[in-house]
Amino acid sequence: MTQFDQRNLSMMMDFYEMTMANGYFADHDKDTKVAFDVFYRKNPDEGGFAIFAGLEQVIEYVENMRFSESDIEYFRAQHMFSEAFLNYLRDFRFTGDIYAMPEGTVMYPDEPILTVVGSLIDAQLVETAILAQINHQSLIATKSRRICKAAAGRAVSDFGARRAHNMDAATYGARAAYIGGVVGTATVSAGQMFGIPISGTMAHSWVMFYGDEYEAFKKYAQTYPDATVLLVDTYDVIHSGIPNAIRVAHETLEPMGKRLLGIRIDSGDLAYLSKRVRKMLDAAGLPDCKIVVSNSLDEFTVASLLSQGACIDSFGIGERLITAKSEPVFGAVYKLAAVGENGEFAPRIKVSENVEKITNPGLKDLYRVYDADGHAVADLLALCGEPVDMAEPFRYVDPQKPWKNRSFEGCTVKNLRRLYVKDGKRTVELPKLDAIRDYVRQQLDTEIWEEEQRFENPHRHYLDMTPDYYEMKMGLLYETRKQHG
Amino acid sequence: MTQFDQRNLSMMMDFYEMTMANGYFADHDKDTKVAFDVFYRKNPDEGGFAIFAGLEQVIEYVENMRFSESDIEYFRAQHMFSEAFLNYLRDFRFTGDIYAMPEGTVMYPDEPILTVVGSLIDAQLVETAILAQINHQSLIATKSRRICKAAAGRAVSDFGARRAHNMDAATYGARAAYIGGVVGTATVSAGQMFGIPISGTMAHSWVMFYGDEYEAFKKYAQTYPDATVLLVDTYDVIHSGIPNAIRVAHETLEPMGKRLLGIRIDSGDLAYLSKRVRKMLDAAGLPDCKIVVSNSLDEFTVASLLSQGACIDSFGIGERLITAKSEPVFGAVYKLAAVGENGEFAPRIKVSENVEKITNPGLKDLYRVYDADGHAVADLLALCGEPVDMAEPFRYVDPQKPWKNRSFEGCTVKNLRRLYVKDGKRTVELPKLDAIRDYVRQQLDTEIWEEEQRFENPHRHYLDMTPDYYEMKMGLLYETRKQHG
Repeated sequence: MTQFDQRNLSMMMDFYEMTMANGYFADHDKDTKVAFDVFYRKNPDEGGFAIFAGLEQVIEYVENMRFSESDIEYFRAQHMFSEAFLNYLRDFRFTGDIYAMPEGTVMYPDEPILTVVGSLIDAQLVETAILAQINHQSLIATKSRRICKAAAGRAVSDFGARRAHNMDAATYGARAAYIGGVVGTATVSAGQMFGIPISGTMAHSWVMFYGDEYEAFKKYAQTYPDATVLLVDTYDVIHSGIPNAIRVAHETLEPMGKRLLGIRIDSGDLAYLSKRVRKMLDAAGLPDCKIVVSNSLDEFTVASLLSQGACIDSFGIGERLITAKSEPVFGAVYKLAAVGENGEFAPRIKVSENVEKITNPGLKDLYRVYDADGHAVADLLALCGEPVDMAEPFRYVDPQKPWKNRSFEGCTVKNLRRLYVKDGKRTVELPKLDAIRDYVRQQLDTEIWEEEQRFENPHRHYLDMTPDYYEMKMGLLYETRKQHG
Repeated sequence: MTQFDQRNLSMMMDFYEMTMANGYFADHDKDTKVAFDVFYRKNPDEGGFAIFAGLEQVIEYVENMRFSESDIEYFRAQHMFSEAFLNYLRDFRFTGDIYAMPEGTVMYPDEPILTVVGSLIDAQLVETAILAQINHQSLIATKSRRICKAAAGRAVSDFGARRAHNMDAATYGARAAYIGGVVGTATVSAGQMFGIPISGTMAHSWVMFYGDEYEAFKKYAQTYPDATVLLVDTYDVIHSGIPNAIRVAHETLEPMGKRLLGIRIDSGDLAYLSKRVRKMLDAAGLPDCKIVVSNSLDEFTVASLLSQGACIDSFGIGERLITAKSEPVFGAVYKLAAVGENGEFAPRIKVSENVEKITNPGLKDLYRVYDADGHAVADLLALCGEPVDMAEPFRYVDPQKPWKNRSFEGCTVKNLRRLYVKDGKRTVELPKLDAIRDYVRQQLDTEIWEEEQRFENPHRHYLDMTPDYYEMKMGLLYETRKQHG
C-alpha cells in the first residue's frame, strides 16, 4: 500500500457534523445510541439499478479516524467548541457498528445500503466521508456496468485519469470502474493499489516527437515487439497511419517473428474509419490486428457504433466514464432511522415538503426475494429480526399500491446485509477486488432480470414491505404529522 | 499542512507516459528538450470564458515527484521496462521549467495556459497529473463563478462534499469554488488546508434526534446563541419549522440579548416558501433573520428564483457545483508544441481528422490586448520573444478570418504568462488564496466585457495571431500535410 491509502481523512467532513457533535456533547447526549441509514432515491441515467461500491474504503476510513493536535487546534480557532469537547476529540475513535450489503451488490432506490449503529457523535461525524466514498464509487461502478453492457462482450478499458475530478477520483474511480466490468485501466496508481491490470501504449506526442510517423511506429515496435499497439490518427488514419502501421507489421515485426497486436483510432468518424481500417488490415494479411477506439465514448455512442457495424475489438473510455458525464451525481443520503431509548431503538422518520424525501424509519432487515428459477423478483423490508419464512406463501405490502393483497409463493430469500464493523473493528476479511467484480457479473448474469438491465424504460424493481414494517411506518408517519402540522 | 498535501502523486499517471518514457530512454532521446502546451478547446456550459485554477497544486506535485523502491518494483513486475530505465527512475526528479498564467486568470479556448519545457521524459511523465489537477480545479472555479454571478451579490457557499467525486474532489473542489467566488465552504479539510472560511449548523438528523422540533431548535440556540441558523423543513416549513424558529427567537435568544441569525430551507418550492417565510419572520419582528436555501441549485435555478422575487439572502450550493453537473468535464489537453534540435526549438503540429483538434505549434508568447479603457479586446499569440509593441498600430491576423487586414490601435498589452518553475524549483512566491480570488473578481469587474460574461450566447473572445506566428503555423501545416497525405 502506498501512503495514498494511509491518509487520515477525518477532517473531510461538513462542518455541521462538528457543530452538532459539540451540541450533543454539551447536552450529554453523546453516548445515546442511534442508527443512520445510507440510501439513494433514483438510479443514474434512468437505469433499472445501481452497483454498490466503496465499502472497503469506508471501513478503512472509520478504522483510521482520529484527530491530531493540529486538527483540534483548528477547531479551537473556530471559537465555537467547548474545551471539554475538544479534549474529548483527542482520544476519539469510531467505536460503532456498520451493517452493509457486500460490495458489488446490485441495489435499488430507497434501500438501506449501509447502516451505522453507534453513539450519536460517532454516527454523526462519519456522515460526509461515508457518503462521498459511496456516492463516488457507486456512481462510477454503475456507469462502468452500463458501458460494458453496451460493448456486448468487447473489452472496455478506463482511460479517464486526466479528466477525473482530481487524484482520488482517478484512482478510486478506476477501482469502481473495474468493479463495474472494465478489463483494466490506464491509471498506474489504481493498478498499484488495487492490482487492476494496467495498459498503455503511446500518445500523439510519441508520433509528433519523431516527426516521421513510420519512424515513430518502428521505434515503438522495436521497443515493445510483443505489445505493439499503434496510434494511427496523428496525421491521417487512412492515408498515413494505417499504411505506416502495415509497413511496420511487415518490415519490423514479422522479421522478429512478431505480429502487430493492434491499432488505435482516437478521432474522426469511428464507424466509418474502423470499417475501412479493418478491410485494409485484412487485405494486408493482418486479420489478427485488433482495432481499439477512443474519443469521448459512453454507453450510447458505443451502442451506436456497434449498431452501425463498426469493426471494433476494444474501447478506451475516458471522460464520460470517469466523470459519469451524463449524470455525475449519485445522490445517496444519510438519514437518522432510530434512536436508543431505554435500551430499545425507537424509529425516527423524516417527513418532507417533497414526498419522495420521506424516509423508511427504524432498524430493519433487507431481503432479496428469489423465485424458483433464482431470479430476484423483489426486495423486502422487514422489522429488524422479524422472521421472514418463505416456506409458506408470504403476504407482503407494495407501499406504492398498499391496497393490493399479494403473497410471495415458492420463493426463497437472502438477507442482503451483514455486519462488517463491530465496535469500530472489521469483523470479516474483505473480498478481493476480482471477487467483487465477479459477484457483479454473477448477479447480472443469473439473478437480475434482463428487463431491469435495459437502458430504455427498464422494469422497476419492487421494494416491498412486510405487513408489520408497513404498519410501523404508517403509524409513525401519522403520529409525526399529528405532532408537527 | 496536513498529510493530505504531502502525498507523492507520482504514480497518478496514465501508464503510457511510462511506456513512452522507457522507449525514449532506450532510444537515447530522454535528454532532448521539448515543450508541451496545456490548452482547452471549449468553454463549459457554452460560456464565454473559464477561470484557470490548480497551479499551486501542479507546482507542489512536480516538486514532490519521485519514485519509491516499491513503485519501481511495481514497474519491474510489468515486464516491459529495461533495468537501466528502472534504475534511472530511482533518482528521477522533475528538472524542467513551467510557464503559466497566474492562477485565477480569465482564459479562453486554444490558449497555452501552461507550458512545460524540459527533457523529454520529464515533460512526458507529468502529463496526467497536471491535466487532472487543472481540469478539475478550472472546472469548479468556472462553475462557481457562474453561480456567484447568478446570485447577484448574495452569498453563495459550497455544501458539496458528500456528492464530490471522492475526498480530493471535495477538498480541492472547495478551493476552486472559493477562487470562483463562493464566500465559504462546509468542507472542514478545505478550511484547514487553505484557510477558507467554513460554516455549518445542523442537519435534519439534529431535529429528528430530539424528536420535538422546538426542543431541537432551543438546544441549538442555547449552544450557539451567536450563530443560530435553524433548518426548518424537517416536518413542515410553514406550519411547524417557522413557528418553532420564531418561538426560539423570542423565548430563547431574545432573553439572552441575541437575535436569530437565520433559517434554512432545504426542500419544497423555494420561491414560494421563501416569500411566505419572509413575511412570517418580518411580522414576528425578525426582519434581520436571514433566509438561506439549498437543494440541488445551480446558476440556472438561482437566477430563476431571483427572477421570481424569492426572498433569499444566501445560497448553499451542493452537488451541482462540486460536480459541475451540467457539464462535468473540463477538456484541457497536453500537446507537444516543440522539440529541441541543434539548440533551437523546432515547432510540432498535430493535424487531425477533427479540424478543431489542430494544435498551435511552437514556443510562443500569449498577450492580452487592452483598449484605452482597460477592456480586454483580444488575446494575441506571438512567436516566442517576438517584439509586440503597441505604441504604433499593430497588424494582426484573425485565424478564423485571415483575409481581414486589421490592426490594434491605441492599445496596450500584457504578457499573460510567467515562469513559475525553473529547473524543477519554484521561482516565485505563490499568491495567497484570497489574492487569487480577488484577482478573478478584479478582471471580471474591470477588464472583461459584460458581453462575454452573460450565460446566453456570450461574445466570443478573439484569439488573434501576429502575422509571423500565423505564417509559421500555416507553413508547418502545409509541410506536415505534404509529408503525411
